[in-house]
Amino acid sequence: MATPSYKHFLVHHPLPFVAHVEINRPQKLNAFYEEMWLEFKTVFDTLSHSPDVRAIILSGAGDRAFTAGLDVEAASQSGILVQASGEADVARKAVQIKRHVEEFQNCVGSVEKCEKPVICVLHGFAFGLALDISTCADIRIASADVKLAVKEVDIGLAADIGTLSRLPKLVGNFGWVKDVALSARVFGAEEAYRVGFVSQVHENKQKAIEAALEMAELLATKSPVAVQGTKELLNHARDHTLLDSLRYTGVWNSAAIQTSDVERAMLSGLKKRKPTFEKL
Amino acid sequence: MATPSYKHFLVHHPLPFVAHVEINRPQKLNAFYEEMWLEFKTVFDTLSHSPDVRAIILSGAGDRAFTAGLDVEAASQSGILVQASGEADVARKAVQIKRHVEEFQNCVGSVEKCEKPVICVLHGFAFGLALDISTCADIRIASADVKLAVKEVDIGLAADIGTLSRLPKLVGNFGWVKDVALSARVFGAEEAYRVGFVSQVHENKQKAIEAALEMAELLATKSPVAVQGTKELLNHARDHTLLDSLRYTGVWNSAAIQTSDVERAMLSGLKKRKPTFEKL
Amino acid sequence: MATPSYKHFLVHHPLPFVAHVEINRPQKLNAFYEEMWLEFKTVFDTLSHSPDVRAIILSGAGDRAFTAGLDVEAASQSGILVQASGEADVARKAVQIKRHVEEFQNCVGSVEKCEKPVICVLHGFAFGLALDISTCADIRIASADVKLAVKEVDIGLAADIGTLSRLPKLVGNFGWVKDVALSARVFGAEEAYRVGFVSQVHENKQKAIEAALEMAELLATKSPVAVQGTKELLNHARDHTLLDSLRYTGVWNSAAIQTSDVERAMLSGLKKRKPTFEKL
Amino acid sequence: MATPSYKHFLVHHPLPFVAHVEINRPQKLNAFYEEMWLEFKTVFDTLSHSPDVRAIILSGAGDRAFTAGLDVEAASQSGILVQASGEADVARKAVQIKRHVEEFQNCVGSVEKCEKPVICVLHGFAFGLALDISTCADIRIASADVKLAVKEVDIGLAADIGTLSRLPKLVGNFGWVKDVALSARVFGAEEAYRVGFVSQVHENKQKAIEAALEMAELLATKSPVAVQGTKELLNHARDHTLLDSLRYTGVWNSAAIQTSDVERAMLSGLKKRKPTFEKL
Amino acid sequence: MATPSYKHFLVHHPLPFVAHVEINRPQKLNAFYEEMWLEFKTVFDTLSHSPDVRAIILSGAGDRAFTAGLDVEAASQSGILVQASGEADVARKAVQIKRHVEEFQNCVGSVEKCEKPVICVLHGFAFGLALDISTCADIRIASADVKLAVKEVDIGLAADIGTLSRLPKLVGNFGWVKDVALSARVFGAEEAYRVGFVSQVHENKQKAIEAALEMAELLATKSPVAVQGTKELLNHARDHTLLDSLRYTGVWNSAAIQTSDVERAMLSGLKKRKPTFEKL
Amino acid sequence: MATPSYKHFLVHHPLPFVAHVEINRPQKLNAFYEEMWLEFKTVFDTLSHSPDVRAIILSGAGDRAFTAGLDVEAASQSGILVQASGEADVARKAVQIKRHVEEFQNCVGSVEKCEKPVICVLHGFAFGLALDISTCADIRIASADVKLAVKEVDIGLAADIGTLSRLPKLVGNFGWVKDVALSARVFGAEEAYRVGFVSQVHENKQKAIEAALEMAELLATKSPVAVQGTKELLNHARDHTLLDSLRYTGVWNSAAIQTSDVERAMLSGLKKRKPTFEKL
Repeated sequence: MATPSYKHFLVHHPLPFVAHVEINRPQKLNAFYEEMWLEFKTVFDTLSHSPDVRAIILSGAGDRAFTAGLDVEAASQSGILVQASGEADVARKAVQIKRHVEEFQNCVGSVEKCEKPVICVLHGFAFGLALDISTCADIRIASADVKLAVKEVDIGLAADIGTLSRLPKLVGNFGWVKDVALSARVFGAEEAYRVGFVSQVHENKQKAIEAALEMAELLATKSPVAVQGTKELLNHARDHTLLDSLRYTGVWNSAAIQTSDVERAMLSGLKKRKPTFEKL
Repeated sequence: MATPSYKHFLVHHPLPFVAHVEINRPQKLNAFYEEMWLEFKTVFDTLSHSPDVRAIILSGAGDRAFTAGLDVEAASQSGILVQASGEADVARKAVQIKRHVEEFQNCVGSVEKCEKPVICVLHGFAFGLALDISTCADIRIASADVKLAVKEVDIGLAADIGTLSRLPKLVGNFGWVKDVALSARVFGAEEAYRVGFVSQVHENKQKAIEAALEMAELLATKSPVAVQGTKELLNHARDHTLLDSLRYTGVWNSAAIQTSDVERAMLSGLKKRKPTFEKL
Repeated sequence: MATPSYKHFLVHHPLPFVAHVEINRPQKLNAFYEEMWLEFKTVFDTLSHSPDVRAIILSGAGDRAFTAGLDVEAASQSGILVQASGEADVARKAVQIKRHVEEFQNCVGSVEKCEKPVICVLHGFAFGLALDISTCADIRIASADVKLAVKEVDIGLAADIGTLSRLPKLVGNFGWVKDVALSARVFGAEEAYRVGFVSQVHENKQKAIEAALEMAELLATKSPVAVQGTKELLNHARDHTLLDSLRYTGVWNSAAIQTSDVERAMLSGLKKRKPTFEKL
Repeated sequence: MATPSYKHFLVHHPLPFVAHVEINRPQKLNAFYEEMWLEFKTVFDTLSHSPDVRAIILSGAGDRAFTAGLDVEAASQSGILVQASGEADVARKAVQIKRHVEEFQNCVGSVEKCEKPVICVLHGFAFGLALDISTCADIRIASADVKLAVKEVDIGLAADIGTLSRLPKLVGNFGWVKDVALSARVFGAEEAYRVGFVSQVHENKQKAIEAALEMAELLATKSPVAVQGTKELLNHARDHTLLDSLRYTGVWNSAAIQTSDVERAMLSGLKKRKPTFEKL
Repeated sequence: MATPSYKHFLVHHPLPFVAHVEINRPQKLNAFYEEMWLEFKTVFDTLSHSPDVRAIILSGAGDRAFTAGLDVEAASQSGILVQASGEADVARKAVQIKRHVEEFQNCVGSVEKCEKPVICVLHGFAFGLALDISTCADIRIASADVKLAVKEVDIGLAADIGTLSRLPKLVGNFGWVKDVALSARVFGAEEAYRVGFVSQVHENKQKAIEAALEMAELLATKSPVAVQGTKELLNHARDHTLLDSLRYTGVWNSAAIQTSDVERAMLSGLKKRKPTFEKL
Repeated sequence: MATPSYKHFLVHHPLPFVAHVEINRPQKLNAFYEEMWLEFKTVFDTLSHSPDVRAIILSGAGDRAFTAGLDVEAASQSGILVQASGEADVARKAVQIKRHVEEFQNCVGSVEKCEKPVICVLHGFAFGLALDISTCADIRIASADVKLAVKEVDIGLAADIGTLSRLPKLVGNFGWVKDVALSARVFGAEEAYRVGFVSQVHENKQKAIEAALEMAELLATKSPVAVQGTKELLNHARDHTLLDSLRYTGVWNSAAIQTSDVERAMLSGLKKRKPTFEKL
């Protein structure tokens, strides 16, 4: 299949129905600037609706970093921090900042809104924005060399692109979340695994990518109606009361269960063969 | 005490104030069909209000399974999946499916609504519906041989009877929840213990039942006003903001603290003897 | 700096910008009575707004207890339990109890509302109210000798000062929360660490205090705008949907990012020196 | 069509797809006692799923009352108020009362949960429970002689079967809601119309019934997929944020729009003839 | 009964169980400054718990104004607006402002938290803070001469002491709310009555006070358990979903219904005499 | 100022800081098709951030219609209804429909998200989509000839672009909302005014536009910080509990109050002259 090409991202298709997105600015440790996060949203919005994609892997290009976070140098020349230190009226600057943060949040959040499951491989430096992005993914796999940090406190900021909103709902250890978010300290793969932030740790980036491919391949063989519905319902459940979640689930499945995938899956189960499913 | 007898469930009273419910269709791996989950609700609604019951154990009968889940053969002859593949108007089928799912959710949810604490012993096959049921219980204890799976994706469905709604609130590792729910893979007792899905693992079903009996016996000696209030307030807290939870708690205890159990418990404490409490 | 002195609490300043609060009634195992929790609120409200404080440590005075909880003897002579067993109309007693519980909840909750991060060192006996208080803190560190229990069920009560509301949001293992809350059993430092209730365990109280001092010292060097914003946004996130949390975060930072701390922090980063920040 | 017959309710079918339920205990001013509200739920649950019903009218039998409310005489011999004044432990009585109120709320709430629109004709005495019931209906039409009151304060109670929960969401004049709920004063049809509690006022019960029949007949000619979906989505919207409501609506219609009713309705519109729709 | 005396408020007891609070700074059109709203909270917190009070009337002293709002002159010398224009760091000023607004909101909100019903008589100038205060009251009665305005936009502010939060939940005409809040235009008694902001209009302040006294007298004869419960449950319902409101109501009444007021009220009803109720 | 020109919309600037948007497809009664609602979003997103705009008027071009709603002819050739009746798998069609509805909701919702107040002038035919759009506006003004209808039920649909979600929160008469939404009946200006759906009625479109201009001119003279903050806080209040709304308001104003508009507005008030404010 033909894939659009992007300035800051490599998107390839290592396996049927599996896309691999690489953040591709390795000479700058994959640090982000504004044009880049706008394109990031385009990448994930496109994959979200592509019928040829059923599972997505996200990693950094190169060996040194998933992403070192915000490109502070670029940010110090334009963007939010410059706006914040300008001469305008405080309230008017606040409006500009709010608009900027909202757009930035929306771009990063495209990973979470993506209808297909996203497996994030964390390796090398993974600071600041790396957490904002990876907390949007469905599953996180780490390379043993990963250096993680909620780094924003160290530049005088509370993180505002999603980490503080998502991390407490991802990891059931609120004391640990506060520890790393307040101290901005670096933590590694083992600690991330122990508290449940990552699901697997592998000895290096290559092995971690292989594990992600294996999982993506598995997900891509399943009914896309079932897989994508499961992602949607779990994300909905996280944010709603039990009763709301059950009600939404009932309505969701009132359409979804009418799929032919159920019959295909069941027949394949009986006949011990692999089912194939229509695109979605 | 006299206990009603049921077609698909064994209910006995191994200890004072302790009921043990066994899913009793071992020849079919305790798989459920519609008549059975309707009766399941009757069992738990009855125990919920029975003054002779203060703690409940739930397990499967026989050695092979807690429950293998939905009886797919029965379901393929009637029920939701047949409705879903019929000839009627899509919207009208959707209404039938929604009604069906709601009733099914209500039946399974009777374990959570049950005013008395429920300890679930998971053993053997525990697929699909086994998760829907056990996530409603208060405490889960596993036998080492248990084979657990959120199996629905493998029949082309997103699980809709409660697992996707409850599991993210039970286990503070959202990545793991997504992993098992999206992949439908089987996991065992050790993994379930590591992520906090079960509280204890014992070498076989018999030992697990004994541990459950020990815990149930302990809970049955406590003030039922205090125990049942604690269950209610914890379930309320899970779904509400902190302020709502504190407000509800204050109102709840404005009646509950007027119980004579407080005085009895305190006096017994001072006199180093075991208190007895009125039925509830 | 001058510090007010309190009847039941010692407040000292072991390091710049660090306050240490000790519950100071060691002859009664630091048990609380009404006058004491009213003063407790005064202590934390004062520290919350003090520009000379950026991090707070909370522990018990003496070696035997953080706090053994409610002073049951005092409570049996006045207060809520006496009101509950009096002669008045049930509804009128309920109003008195509700008012009492609300005030008590507010006093304990002052730790959570405190704008500065609070590190709680748990040691010795830490029963009942010890849980209500420590679940309000941001980070919990344990001494190896700590004996923890949600003790209220054993005096015929559901805990109503905050433990049941906060514990399920602090620890992502709802089965364990129910186990300890329903059974009132004592658990130790290792178990508390395993489930994520405490972040660190040290061999004795002294070592635990030292670890807390080290963490507090670190937090006190950071931008107070960033640290205090992070505490606020994490507590908000716990109780709100993702979208509400992101929206609130954007508005919060629309003022906070206009701080000069960002420039100071960045410059210091470039120049490899320690930044200093204005008081807050 | 055959209709089950009930002890306390008359159910007839004055027009195709229209059911008329009359509360039938006129000798007691249609006052309710426990057996009666249990049957009330059966009536509405049955109509909710009956494919022969698309709109429902609810009124009292006889000329004197819609319902005078709770049968206080019966209640004083059994039920909630007797439980409340008995000798048992306060906390245990509280549990009994809570169970009783929940069941009573569920029975009355069956009008709101009914999938078909319910038009309530209020006439004569309409006190207490009359408000609980009529606030569950979709549309209220009054006879000029109606005497309405939220009567519970006059028997020493806060109304607990739904009026206090629903009235503030039905009528956008919170001061008026508090006025009538706190004072228990009687108000008439004109006042009810002015504040928006009823939609129409007619000179007597007969005219009001006729107006209800006209409206029910109109609703019965519409697509039942569209009408029942509209009721569900409006009730959902009342209780949810805008974003949740829009999300639920999108999922709801993802099945509902696949109905053949859309094509039938559109063709009929073009051909200026009346569409017919399949049962639902 | 003895009443404490206040610097800025007159509190008298014109009828048994009825308190009348007058804002008493008529020479300044009853405009508020910081010391005054702190005392305002003390007044209402005291009345809230006073067993001798069952209904409260709130008006301005003198003929010219309920209150002209914030004393802008005083505010321009100290307080929030001065803080806002000072020299400090933007983020640090923001923290000061937030603390200030929270305290101010809490003081005004004491009217809403007051357990007894509050009837607000609006007369003369009633600008800005007058709306913040009166939206907290349960019932609003106007004198024909009242001049109302959500005035804050005219001093460059969005109203932040409660009007924007409460008005949309009080008046079911969101377009009108936006009209008056965005334009800051003055509106009179008739318009306020038409949209449901006030319940009654009387020709002058004296007549309005008389009407308020009549209503307060009526409420004071009712069971205080029932009246105060009704206020609480209605305020809870405004902010919660239907299911949460019903659940809270059931728990509330599980204690409240055990009052002897029910029996007293019923007996009095049968014997056609006026009941008396114990203090609350 | 230069304004972009649009294919389906006229945007002019009749007064300083006032924009007037006309839906410009009068030969088709201003009916919408997909390309048109995508452009509609562009129009409002642009105005939202334009510093030269402080108030917006929205009307239809021509005398016959605000908008007759969805262009059913166009819709029957492409778009959602065609997707719904196609041959694909039910679940896959449901996903397509959901995506389509979400995008459509987002486009219409741009009026509500627009930071500047929007005054909607309703005239002539105003069916279906006219309600979805106008319920997003802040203020609605009607011409006497307007013919309004929630028309969707008549084409077999529950309205899903926002009317059912917003109307219950706009108009405090839930019975009336259900009446017009279930029956799809046409209602006129007087009824719309009586229930509070529109704020003003004028004898024809021209007079209604003049009234809207007058109001827009007034809003444009006010502090834009105050006006835009007020819109944001009122929309937030509609969807949140009281406590959340107060908390958000405090944080919002902690930046906004630091504006110079406060000083300018106050000085102008004292000097009786018109203030001017910087752009926003």
